[in-house]
Amino acid sequence: MNDALLIRNDIDGVCTLTLNRPDAYNSLSMELMQALIAEFGLIADDNSVRVVVLKGSGRGFCSGHDLKQIIGEGEEDYYQCTFDTCSELMQSIVNLPIPVIAQVHGVATAAGCQIVASCDLAVASDKSRFATPGVNIGLFCSTPMVALSRSVSKKHAMEMLLLGDMISAAKAAEIGLVNWVVADELVEQKTDEVAGKIAASSRKAISIGKQAYVRQIDKPLDEAYVECSRVMTENMLTHDAGEGIDAFINKRKPRWQHR
Amino acid sequence: MNDALLIRNDIDGVCTLTLNRPDAYNSLSMELMQALIAEFGLIADDNSVRVVVLKGSGRGFCSGHDLKQIIGEGEEDYYQCTFDTCSELMQSIVNLPIPVIAQVHGVATAAGCQIVASCDLAVASDKSRFATPGVNIGLFCSTPMVALSRSVSKKHAMEMLLLGDMISAAKAAEIGLVNWVVADELVEQKTDEVAGKIAASSRKAISIGKQAYVRQIDKPLDEAYVECSRVMTENMLTHDAGEGIDAFINKRKPRWQHR
Amino acid sequence: MNDALLIRNDIDGVCTLTLNRPDAYNSLSMELMQALIAEFGLIADDNSVRVVVLKGSGRGFCSGHDLKQIIGEGEEDYYQCTFDTCSELMQSIVNLPIPVIAQVHGVATAAGCQIVASCDLAVASDKSRFATPGVNIGLFCSTPMVALSRSVSKKHAMEMLLLGDMISAAKAAEIGLVNWVVADELVEQKTDEVAGKIAASSRKAISIGKQAYVRQIDKPLDEAYVECSRVMTENMLTHDAGEGIDAFINKRKPRWQHR
Repeated sequence: MNDALLIRNDIDGVCTLTLNRPDAYNSLSMELMQALIAEFGLIADDNSVRVVVLKGSGRGFCSGHDLKQIIGEGEEDYYQCTFDTCSELMQSIVNLPIPVIAQVHGVATAAGCQIVASCDLAVASDKSRFATPGVNIGLFCSTPMVALSRSVSKKHAMEMLLLGDMISAAKAAEIGLVNWVVADELVEQKTDEVAGKIAASSRKAISIGKQAYVRQIDKPLDEAYVECSRVMTENMLTHDAGEGIDAFINKRKPRWQHR
Repeated sequence: MNDALLIRNDIDGVCTLTLNRPDAYNSLSMELMQALIAEFGLIADDNSVRVVVLKGSGRGFCSGHDLKQIIGEGEEDYYQCTFDTCSELMQSIVNLPIPVIAQVHGVATAAGCQIVASCDLAVASDKSRFATPGVNIGLFCSTPMVALSRSVSKKHAMEMLLLGDMISAAKAAEIGLVNWVVADELVEQKTDEVAGKIAASSRKAISIGKQAYVRQIDKPLDEAYVECSRVMTENMLTHDAGEGIDAFINKRKPRWQHR
Repeated sequence: MNDALLIRNDIDGVCTLTLNRPDAYNSLSMELMQALIAEFGLIADDNSVRVVVLKGSGRGFCSGHDLKQIIGEGEEDYYQCTFDTCSELMQSIVNLPIPVIAQVHGVATAAGCQIVASCDLAVASDKSRFATPGVNIGLFCSTPMVALSRSVSKKHAMEMLLLGDMISAAKAAEIGLVNWVVADELVEQKTDEVAGKIAASSRKAISIGKQAYVRQIDKPLDEAYVECSRVMTENMLTHDAGEGIDAFINKRKPRWQHR
């Protein structure tokens, strides 16, 4: 048994990170958040990784912050450090040059739900459930709101945030919080299929595109086009675009340089 | 019979505001808009109120502006004052520190539909209908568009705005304009249930969160996180967060200070 | 047979533009993009046009860029010119003062899918399919992303962009990329109905509103309201608003000045 907080497993360009605090519903202790940030830092510079899968061990995905640890410290500076570290973690997912897929089973609540909202894609078990339940403990999910309100529409975000109730996987798919809902026993298989498809693409093209998404999304339309028009040109100048287009025109399989 | 333009009724922290111009489909005369703005001003400073419900008397929710009054005045300054007052009203809903729930029966059109889009949550009768029908009278719903285009996706907003047709409550739910659709006779009961849930939460936490939503939604991701990370810390320092977390850990019911 | 790249046909205020490179799936050669930009320039100044329908000839709507032409040129300056021209084309759709409706049959991929996302409304055949398949050829659809990520939610956009798979018309409707899906043989009839409804409205009101949409969508809420409150006043001062409101109050049909 691996008793590390975070378990990393790399196969064929797919890097699986498993939150490994099963007895604490994989709640995000300071140490686990720091381990994740450090790992994303390593992955960002590792060309052998093409896509990341994030999942939880035990009964669920992630229940958010470790409340006992926060209360145990009980000082303003520690609170601020906790939420700053958490915000850094979420942005390290968004800013990672390759895609991150959430593989969700059981519950994903508070900062756990925020991880799902921050990931590029999400596969969910039909038994999984989602909530931003801070209002139930007098602590509104304001940082999860940043990710949630950029993923789902205003009424749906406010419904989750103001009521704090669990929503089903089906509803999470309906409102756009997750992409796919499959039978509990097929979550891993579906995630493998999605991750495998991305890992078989050009890492260069994928990373150019994901980084362009982040740079353009908050810009006005005209500035977004100036940015992305330049990005397309740079993408065209890569080996893989030349190879891909040639393969397409000649109806053959492309061979990426950056495999 | 109460013949005030706007009827206020407070029960257990739930403040119900009833638009009371039933013979005019609760259209927003200058006087009614001013009454609403004044009431929201009072509510903002009233700690006994935890959530607002906005509904209409008579056959429907609200049919928008009072066209007869506008035409009767017939001057550019009056037009500008009308739309400025309306915009102030909508922003007083958005900026109110506690949530506003629209309870919709019958029609909600033009500025009436804009109220629904501006509210945090909306409960709709299965017989209710929604439209931004300005194009039918040569007056595009440009101010309702501000709220609508921040609530639903672009194609859905343009469909309502360019065609001006009535949409069903079911479609309104599908596109994210309302949260719940229930049988006509259950609208009040469902609204009571939602409002009651919010009123039972910490007013402090709810108001911290709603105000944070408004401050973060137009910011780039990194600035939104700086803002909300600070908000979480301040929320942690409140009595209710300490109480809520302690109650959660000890599996007991929390007792909010700000009840 | 008309062998022009772009066929224009005007009937009763509805201007239909047909992409006419059926042997190349209406791919956007430099010449076709320039023809479209020029035509939108003429339409912008032509008061007789009230709405534009954009469709493709032959087997599908549009397959994106003409890869053979791009590769044939093979220089950085030409790539940049291609994507700049394409971005200009998309913005000429968005900035056109009257609505543009995409009438989609067959496939709409890459920049073809970007056109659909850029249009105000879209009618789709139940046999149509949509994709941003750049990742399959090592060329991430970064410019289509600009339009797509402003039309559909983040997870849905990333799913299309990262996987590059075809999605059905039904899914395109579900995620908000198109408004209506009808049987293949009814696409033209449905488009005619929608275009006819818009063409029967006041051109003045429609153009005031569409232009206001573009100006307000990237602004913070308060600035958007200042902008649109002024727009409403200007709209009120037009002949058509006076006529429309008078007709509404007197229960008669309005007669628009700008027909």
